This record gives sequence, C-alpha cells and structure tokens, in this order.
Amino acid sequence: MVKLAIDAMGGDYAPEEIVKGTLKALHEQEDLEVVLFGNEEKLRGMIPDTPRLQIVNAPQTFSMGEENPIRAIRSNKEASMVMAFQSVKDKTCQGVVTAGPTQCAIVCAHFVVGRLKGMKRVALCPQIPSFKEGGCLMLDVGANTDMKPEYLVQYALYADAYARKIKGIKNPKVYLLNIGVEPHKGRDFERSCYQQLTQAPLNFCGNIEPSSLLTSDADIVVTDGFTGNVAMKTLEGTAKAISDALKKDIASNLGGKIGYLFMKKNLRQFKNRFNTEQVGGAILFGVDGVVVKAHGNSKENAFCNAILLAKRVVDGNILEQMRTYIEENPIAVEEQSNE
Amino acid sequence: MVKLAIDAMGGDYAPEEIVKGTLKALHEQEDLEVVLFGNEEKLRGMIPDTPRLQIVNAPQTFSMGEENPIRAIRSNKEASMVMAFQSVKDKTCQGVVTAGPTQCAIVCAHFVVGRLKGMKRVALCPQIPSFKEGGCLMLDVGANTDMKPEYLVQYALYADAYARKIKGIKNPKVYLLNIGVEPHKGRDFERSCYQQLTQAPLNFCGNIEPSSLLTSDADIVVTDGFTGNVAMKTLEGTAKAISDALKKDIASNLGGKIGYLFMKKNLRQFKNRFNTEQVGGAILFGVDGVVVKAHGNSKENAFCNAILLAKRVVDGNILEQMRTYIEENPIAVEEQSNE
Repeated sequence: MVKLAIDAMGGDYAPEEIVKGTLKALHEQEDLEVVLFGNEEKLRGMIPDTPRLQIVNAPQTFSMGEENPIRAIRSNKEASMVMAFQSVKDKTCQGVVTAGPTQCAIVCAHFVVGRLKGMKRVALCPQIPSFKEGGCLMLDVGANTDMKPEYLVQYALYADAYARKIKGIKNPKVYLLNIGVEPHKGRDFERSCYQQLTQAPLNFCGNIEPSSLLTSDADIVVTDGFTGNVAMKTLEGTAKAISDALKKDIASNLGGKIGYLFMKKNLRQFKNRFNTEQVGGAILFGVDGVVVKAHGNSKENAFCNAILLAKRVVDGNILEQMRTYIEENPIAVEEQSNE
Repeated sequence: MVKLAIDAMGGDYAPEEIVKGTLKALHEQEDLEVVLFGNEEKLRGMIPDTPRLQIVNAPQTFSMGEENPIRAIRSNKEASMVMAFQSVKDKTCQGVVTAGPTQCAIVCAHFVVGRLKGMKRVALCPQIPSFKEGGCLMLDVGANTDMKPEYLVQYALYADAYARKIKGIKNPKVYLLNIGVEPHKGRDFERSCYQQLTQAPLNFCGNIEPSSLLTSDADIVVTDGFTGNVAMKTLEGTAKAISDALKKDIASNLGGKIGYLFMKKNLRQFKNRFNTEQVGGAILFGVDGVVVKAHGNSKENAFCNAILLAKRVVDGNILEQMRTYIEENPIAVEEQSNE
C-alpha cells in the first residue's frame, strides 16, 4: 500500500478537480491510500464516504501569484501545501502531490521536507513533449538558477536512475542543452559540464541544440534552471501559439471548415502528441521524499495522472537508490547554499 | 547610390543562389551597387554582363562547420568573407551581406571591421517570428555569452534607434526576456538589467516570458546571447517540428488528403506567418559598419531580402545616430574584452 499526501487546495481548479482526480486515482489503484489536506468542511461536502481516503483540515491556502514563497511558507504553517509536505517529512505519507504555485512547492520541498543528504540542489524535472516514444525528461527547468557543473552531473545521475527504474529505459541517452553540438560550444559552464558528464557513469551523448528538443533521441536533457525554464516555456508557448493560430486560420473560411471535417481525426492525432495531461506533472528531484508538482491548470485527468506518477516513483524506490549512489560518490565541492 | 559587399561563397547554396539573389536585388533597386567577393572564374561564368556589379577574386572560403573561426580568419586573409568585410573597413563598401557561418561573421566583424567606438559588445539581432504586424527584434541571440547589464542597455538603445528609423515604429516597446514577469524574477543579471532598463530613455515594458514571444506586443526583446540563442532555436525548432508533424499526420489517410484540398489556402496562410524568407537576415549591431548575416540556407529570395535589409540600414544612417548617442552616454564600466 502506498500512502500519498494531496494538497487539495492548490491549482487553478482546486479543490473540485483535485478531488475528482484523486477519486479517479483511488478507483484505479487498489493499493493506494490518500490524505487530502484542505478546508475540511468544504471537502467533506464534496466527497462521498470513500475507503482509503482521509481528510485533514488545513485552513489556509497560497494564491497562485504568491510573490514571496519563503515568507508565505514561514508564516502559513497551516497552509494545505505546507501541511501536506510536512506529512512527508514526518513519514506519515510516502509522497506528496500538489498543483499549487511552483516556487512555493520548491521552497516547501527545501524547508519542510529537506534535501536528500549529499544532494546539492533540487531540480524540477518535467517530461517535455517529444516525438520520441515515451517522451524526454528535462532538468532543471526552474528550481535553481545558480549552478555548478557538479550539481548538474548529480541531476543527470538522478534522472538516469529514474529513467531506468520508472520508465524502463535500458540505457538512457543523456544530453546537455547547449547552443551548438561541438564540445567547445557554450559558456564556461557548459564546457565544464560537458567534460564532467563524459567522465560520469552515464550514456552521455553530447550536446543537444534547442532546435532538436522535439525530434531528438534524447531520454534525458540536463541544463541549469534558468536555461531550462526558458527552453521549456519557449517550447510550450510556441506549440500553443501555433495551434491557436492554426485553429483560427482553419475557421476563417468555408473551405477550412469543410476541410476540418475531413481531417478531424488527423488533427486530433496531432493534438495528442502535445497533450501534457498524460504526463501529469514534474518530479522534484533531490528532495528527501517524493514530490510531484502537477500543472497549475490540472483538471481531473491530469491530476489523477500526477498521483499515479507519484505512486510509481514511490514503488520504484528511486530515493533509496540515489541515497546509495550519493554515499558512494560524494561531491567534494564547497557548498554554497542557495536557501 | 549604396554600395554593398557580397560574400558570394558563403551559405549552403553558394554561389548559385547568392548570385541569383544579388541579381534580383540589383534589378529591384536602381540606386544599389554591389561588389561580389568569390571565385572570380566561377562567378564570371555565371553572371551576364551586369551594370552596377563588380567581381573581386577571393580564392578561399570557410566551411559551414568551421570549428575555430578566429584561427580560420587569421589564416585566410583571402577568404571571400574576410575580403568582403575588409571592404567595409576600408570604406570601399558601405555594408556587407554574408550567408556564411555565423561565428565566422561575428569574429570577422570584430577583427576585420571592429566595434563602434564606445559600444561594448556586438549583438546578433534577427527579427523573430511574431503574430504582431512587423515582427519583433530579439538581441543578442548568439554573438556574446559573457554580458553585463550595461551592455544589454546599449543593445536596447541600438535596437530602439533601429526600430524607429528603419521599421518606422514610433515608440518601440522594449522587453527583457525572463523566467517570470515580476521585476524580482531571474538571476542577478536579469534583476540588474531590469533596473537599468527602467532608467534608460526607452519605452521599457518589463519582463517577457518565453511563452509569450510569439504573441506579445513587443517590438524589441533583449537578453544575453546564450539565453537568446536558446530561445530562438527552441522557437524555430518547435515551429518546424510541429509543421513537419502536421504535414505527416495530414497525409496519413484519405480524409486528411481530401481535407487538405479544402483548407489548402488556410494552411498556406498559416505557413506564411512563419516564413523567415521575408526578413532575409539578422543585423550585427555594435559593429563600425553595416553587417547583415543571412540564413545559411538562404536561396534567391531570402538572400535578395537580406541585401535589401542591408541597404535600408545604410540608408537609415543608424550608425551615425548610435555614434552620437554613445558619445553622449558613455558606459563607465571597466571593459573586459571577450575577444
């Protein structure tokens, strides 16, 4: 049995869609148990008597536009997100899923749960859309903007363990995001990362240019949090803008409308390639507990998938594997905490 | 009369398409004169006797995969690109257009032509696709990865002058590329840039997230060369991958093929939004001469448009304007040359 904490109040459609997604996940997984953290009265009114579901009252919430996550978390010990993360720290739950603000989740992971011993940074690791079967992991995409090459190697090793255990990939292909494929390309940071990645026990395949993100054979792409965030947001924004424009252009005259009827199936097939709902969320690597950050706009299906993802990560026992790896391969660099 | 130097041997389709594009530009602009630098024998065989066109023999060329541009340029004084840039340095020509390797063009601009006095860095400034009428300028996208906020402000001022004079935009909207819209977002670099941009004589509108690049009202987006290169390549790569996938999905069955016949016009309209041919090339800001870098894959039309762009920049007399501005607003920071 896996027991997960759910932040019932985080996300654009909380708590309604969060509750629906949670009930769906419970229905699909018989060895899953959840604890919903949120406004108890409200939640009780929405939820029928359900086995394997517990509600804990957490009267406060964070707004999605929270400007100062550190202050917000320090002064809101009874926020649903804080209490949910606390249950992971206390080992009451084995993992936590939230659709609340990303920066709050990252700060909560640091302050409430804490980093895995020896892990120098946490990294937000979503699966980015890719034409490759199974998609591609990219990290970090926003947890840290201040990086050292050594930390990036830890990211790669973490993602490698994850890709093997959870995604069942035999020898994951690891790439470094860079502005050119040659080893000498990029800033000092990338050149140094390149060298260290070559020496790590990884299937390191070299630099990947941002133009190939969707079409490459990469299983894992590593980068610093600033660059990763820029690349991910450009990719998502471009895909959305193009699909919106296409829709508008198609609907602009009769020919387009008739044509649409004929190629409806093809266009749906096309849309599904970029469907982020299936993935559910991004994992926060480097935390001493399983943390999944679902999209802020998650509805029932997306949030259910985020829960299933968290469960797979708990089942896969990745944390234990990373603990062992880090003990055997400690990073000697002086730590400059960014907390 | 404007006299431009053309690197006839640079680009994937050189010299054939470069020559075609040049002849087209000459045909369209009566007050244009060109000097083609390249293999004289080859060029003479391709070109009919043409008024306002001169050929200068430049027996060497750079390969598109040139690994060490600095060494290549120092040891190939007779390369078509070097000789074309030299003619700008010597004031024989007023500007130069090349479709050769980007890094070679940037290094040539530095070493052969030299920076505008007081300008701390050069910046590669393409027009990126945007749904906004007239598109959007983004800089730097790859000339410099080592930046200071002061240099970025110079970029913005340069682009501002360009947008007003060449594009006829009255009060260009300037944004800073960042991972969030709030002023405190990003690295120290972005926070510092934000502050300095606020104080500059610009219509600075704040941060822009990469997800809004295609749909915002920005006329100018400033960023460091590494981030800009990542954003631009992600945008271009995503647009291309999506359009390729769409084409494939549409052709995958009969319904798609019939539908295509009906919406052909709509899809063409859609494609034109992302057509980079119209723009022709990116300008290299900060150089003491007009330098336009055309796409490596330029064919006749694209290269012709790159030439027309260079001519407009010469006609607009931007360099003179920037000279005056820089003299009146010198940057006091200690210069660490990245040459």
